[in-house]
Amino acid sequence: MKKKMKFGACLPTFASCADRYCLSGYGPKRTLDEMFERASLVEDLNGVELVGNWHINDDNFGHIKKTLKRYDLEVCMMTPDLWTQAKWGKGSFASNERKIREDAVKEVKKVMDMAADIGCDKVDVWLGQDGFDYSFQADYIEDWNNIVECTKECAKYRKDIKVCVEYKLKEPRKNCYVSTAAKTLLLINEVDMDNVGVLLDLGHSTAALENPSEAAALISRYKDKLFYIHLNDNYRFWDDDMMPGSVSIPVLMEFIFWLEEIGYDDYYTLDIFPFREDGVKAAIESIEWIKAMKVVIENYGRDKIMKVIKSGDAVESMKMMREALIKGG
Amino acid sequence: MKKKMKFGACLPTFASCADRYCLSGYGPKRTLDEMFERASLVEDLNGVELVGNWHINDDNFGHIKKTLKRYDLEVCMMTPDLWTQAKWGKGSFASNERKIREDAVKEVKKVMDMAADIGCDKVDVWLGQDGFDYSFQADYIEDWNNIVECTKECAKYRKDIKVCVEYKLKEPRKNCYVSTAAKTLLLINEVDMDNVGVLLDLGHSTAALENPSEAAALISRYKDKLFYIHLNDNYRFWDDDMMPGSVSIPVLMEFIFWLEEIGYDDYYTLDIFPFREDGVKAAIESIEWIKAMKVVIENYGRDKIMKVIKSGDAVESMKMMREALIKGG
Amino acid sequence: MKKKMKFGACLPTFASCADRYCLSGYGPKRTLDEMFERASLVEDLNGVELVGNWHINDDNFGHIKKTLKRYDLEVCMMTPDLWTQAKWGKGSFASNERKIREDAVKEVKKVMDMAADIGCDKVDVWLGQDGFDYSFQADYIEDWNNIVECTKECAKYRKDIKVCVEYKLKEPRKNCYVSTAAKTLLLINEVDMDNVGVLLDLGHSTAALENPSEAAALISRYKDKLFYIHLNDNYRFWDDDMMPGSVSIPVLMEFIFWLEEIGYDDYYTLDIFPFREDGVKAAIESIEWIKAMKVVIENYGRDKIMKVIKSGDAVESMKMMREALIKGG
Amino acid sequence: MKKKMKFGACLPTFASCADRYCLSGYGPKRTLDEMFERASLVEDLNGVELVGNWHINDDNFGHIKKTLKRYDLEVCMMTPDLWTQAKWGKGSFASNERKIREDAVKEVKKVMDMAADIGCDKVDVWLGQDGFDYSFQADYIEDWNNIVECTKECAKYRKDIKVCVEYKLKEPRKNCYVSTAAKTLLLINEVDMDNVGVLLDLGHSTAALENPSEAAALISRYKDKLFYIHLNDNYRFWDDDMMPGSVSIPVLMEFIFWLEEIGYDDYYTLDIFPFREDGVKAAIESIEWIKAMKVVIENYGRDKIMKVIKSGDAVESMKMMREALIKGG
Repeated sequence: MKKKMKFGACLPTFASCADRYCLSGYGPKRTLDEMFERASLVEDLNGVELVGNWHINDDNFGHIKKTLKRYDLEVCMMTPDLWTQAKWGKGSFASNERKIREDAVKEVKKVMDMAADIGCDKVDVWLGQDGFDYSFQADYIEDWNNIVECTKECAKYRKDIKVCVEYKLKEPRKNCYVSTAAKTLLLINEVDMDNVGVLLDLGHSTAALENPSEAAALISRYKDKLFYIHLNDNYRFWDDDMMPGSVSIPVLMEFIFWLEEIGYDDYYTLDIFPFREDGVKAAIESIEWIKAMKVVIENYGRDKIMKVIKSGDAVESMKMMREALIKGG
Repeated sequence: MKKKMKFGACLPTFASCADRYCLSGYGPKRTLDEMFERASLVEDLNGVELVGNWHINDDNFGHIKKTLKRYDLEVCMMTPDLWTQAKWGKGSFASNERKIREDAVKEVKKVMDMAADIGCDKVDVWLGQDGFDYSFQADYIEDWNNIVECTKECAKYRKDIKVCVEYKLKEPRKNCYVSTAAKTLLLINEVDMDNVGVLLDLGHSTAALENPSEAAALISRYKDKLFYIHLNDNYRFWDDDMMPGSVSIPVLMEFIFWLEEIGYDDYYTLDIFPFREDGVKAAIESIEWIKAMKVVIENYGRDKIMKVIKSGDAVESMKMMREALIKGG
Repeated sequence: MKKKMKFGACLPTFASCADRYCLSGYGPKRTLDEMFERASLVEDLNGVELVGNWHINDDNFGHIKKTLKRYDLEVCMMTPDLWTQAKWGKGSFASNERKIREDAVKEVKKVMDMAADIGCDKVDVWLGQDGFDYSFQADYIEDWNNIVECTKECAKYRKDIKVCVEYKLKEPRKNCYVSTAAKTLLLINEVDMDNVGVLLDLGHSTAALENPSEAAALISRYKDKLFYIHLNDNYRFWDDDMMPGSVSIPVLMEFIFWLEEIGYDDYYTLDIFPFREDGVKAAIESIEWIKAMKVVIENYGRDKIMKVIKSGDAVESMKMMREALIKGG
Repeated sequence: MKKKMKFGACLPTFASCADRYCLSGYGPKRTLDEMFERASLVEDLNGVELVGNWHINDDNFGHIKKTLKRYDLEVCMMTPDLWTQAKWGKGSFASNERKIREDAVKEVKKVMDMAADIGCDKVDVWLGQDGFDYSFQADYIEDWNNIVECTKECAKYRKDIKVCVEYKLKEPRKNCYVSTAAKTLLLINEVDMDNVGVLLDLGHSTAALENPSEAAALISRYKDKLFYIHLNDNYRFWDDDMMPGSVSIPVLMEFIFWLEEIGYDDYYTLDIFPFREDGVKAAIESIEWIKAMKVVIENYGRDKIMKVIKSGDAVESMKMMREALIKGG
């Protein structure tokens, strides 16, 4: 029998989202306790992602643990903060200053420990500040060396914690090094440790002009290296972090189909920025969309879908999608 | 009571599609008679678009008329050929050679006459070769002057034929002059003739980074200037001419909604390039998608949809789309 | 004789730039006085753009005036704040709440008065929050009506102040209404007031997939409607606000050429976000690039350049650019 | 002492270029002999790329050999035709029909033999038809398996011929499998043969949203796997195949810099489509641009450039580019 899907959300979903024009945020400020309370209003939610230091640290560790218990929430992912402070502005693992790289590795290790303590077996290493903005601004060879070395050092630190490398084409840097599924696989293959794998963010994948299902299939060639996923949507030019299904319904349906096909059985986690929406409602609606895709697939039948895929006939694909997906179809 | 939708298709849908790598085409060669016969296999099809000279000319005029009658097909649009010959390579209306511009205008006039003769009241003026590829390659002021003048001259020629200006951001030129709905409106406003309006191609609109519904609404400010539409889909980077609904379902649903809202009541014409598909099946499936969108909208209720729109609440929009659109939603 | 170019910069160039990941900014915090002092270090700088309320308000008006005098700086532009506060999150001129629209108009009027008092004849109306993120989230017709009405009301308020409408395809909204040069012209034509014109931001233009020179030429058809320009650069997918010349050298050179060709003789103002750079040095280097383009054009000769343009021959364009632009060419 | 650069060009540069709208081509038809004669007019040209069957086959082999000798031209690359015929429309190496895959491998082997006979040690395996257009149209796992197997089989056939895998994000398929440098490296690593490497096409790289210099540096981590390069330019949304330098001068300059840095010492080959230009003049001008970049770099000094790179300071990068590159800078 099919396992039930587990749903997660990044905690800031339930806070006020800001951007470079509205730095104070579009919604009311929320305390950490309020964020958790709001998360608890999303009935299907099983877990939350926390950012180290920012959401959880030595001072509030006990309190957070109790709060999680109260709301029956797991921590599905812990994320070291390698991007919110000016010190990381010109890179963390790929910084050209040894001290910064060492600090970055230390930060990851600290959060790995924290994760273990809180009962979570994963950290999300997203190197958003590691890249370059201008031509002639980076020593690409040296920088990639440093990324490999730092990733390896983190992975070796404790093998009970999975290092999930999250790729993204750009932002905050105009060009990020760890930008696509394939590049992440090159990194992972070079690091060559069991506890290093890929975090595939659906929107990062489409904004990198990938087909996310193809990316997942490619990752699946390398044992079980698809460690974790994020769900959201965008217009393909930027990481808009919109609700899943808002732009790319066929992409979402296909991704949900392939995830199960390749044996993915971990969290379905939302990474959305509901700037102008109520985060609780946005999370609920997002989960409804994901569940609907699952229903649509199961009702139509995985075997029938696979047969269409194998035909390679786009008219059959369109007919299948219409019949499976569209109410009036 | 709602009027029934009328469906059209560009005739080459039923021929072999080629591109710059496979110049001889992906499918079997088809004679003109075969194309019509194949069109007739699409049950819902009411009309076809013909390209002047290429599909219809003085020699075969009588034969084409009979063929149309035999298959009970209208000509929904006549398109002057301003792009298939090397002579138009550096522009037609915006050519920097007077002779070429005169020939282009003559060509349009000839096709306007042909349209009238065949019982069609529209020509599609698509200036795909009018633009520039490189920096410092064009006198933008002079070229736009010429576009205005030539368009005006065509429109004045006979006022019983509507000149439908079709915009497209690029291809075949790397940059085309008549590239967006707004630019087309500027042109039309300057020409200032009743029989000049806009042909909005759904895929041209998304590839120009427009929201096609917004574009249609903008055009509707200028009396009834939305003369005609084309339907298809793409990945937003190029005019992929795929089947409608294949990529952008919310965009398609919203567009079908707004078209009726602004009072559009002409043809729903496919402009697809089924390179690797059977054109007949692709046309049938495309029409099924369009009809499904219509059903989805009517079943949910236009008033309820408009209420959601007016709320400005994206969560409500997503909920509405899920409930209206998705079988498992 | 050619007039000397006047250079301006948005004041935040000299502050700490932040984004949605590093909300506290990449550089050291700067007081307003420090920003002015830093601006004064850019020798070629003649003017600064100030944001109403944020940089200048009733309380500090006298102080700012003195500071400007001390550093011999003009205010080249005053910008009403219609985007930094949560209240504008779902629109200002296009808000579906009358109260918000009225507040927005009031804000613009207030800044128009302030501009007059400070000796600046222009305000920058940038409607970055006016747009939509999701399908079915906006009443496009109503919203555009409101934009027209509000713009008109501002323009009528005092005719000695120019309302410069700045267009941008997206950000902060995923889709902004006033998105391209042509749409801005439609708005301006509908408003039909002498003191309403276009603010063309070079990077907004390229990110809207325009050729900025063509956009400027198009604007120039409508009397002297190119009121003002911003200079910067980007990779065409986003408003990266990088130093001019960093990505698109031919575009920059061509733009500098055409600006003079169409008679633009106002400020050359930088709108850059030097997130990880020293703002003073970034401004100096940016101005050096602009001046270099001017030198390159004058040395080669405007007549010779225009002759190349008129030829329509891309090889000639490339040869001219190489000979004019490239040291080793 | 530095080796002299060797310049190559794809033979169709000297023929008439066509696209899907102007299938008969924008220029005059040219015989094969004329193409060679025209190639010989480009003084700096050392070699030409030939497409198997199309340009060279059993019948004309002797004649071609003599022609090459007459004009003192090498064959710098032989390309098996896996895309110009309808039979490859739904894939060659990744076709879901065994017969097609076998034919594709046979074709490559035949051209490998031909290359050896003509004194060329490389074939260009470009899998432009291997991919998918629609969602749910491809079995990504099976298809990639087939690509790996077919590539391996070709490479094993004869180890004296280098198999250069050329990547491209899309076109003719809407999504191609071998799309980025990193994916090509994954393929090559899996095939694991000395004679399989990467063909990096500058425009394919930018249109895949890569920085080509970073891509080259990444490839250089894997022994000497950068086998060959193509030069051209585009607007980043499509493989426009324009003259190098026309859009992205900093990218070109940086690429020429890094190629030497990583020890690349093979051909600098043009892959341009001069649709509306004279191919001879376009090739000459393109080579002038490449040579100019080289001069610019050497004059400024490689050590000084590397120092700027190591600083990570974008203002220094911009200053260096201005001083090195711009005549007026």
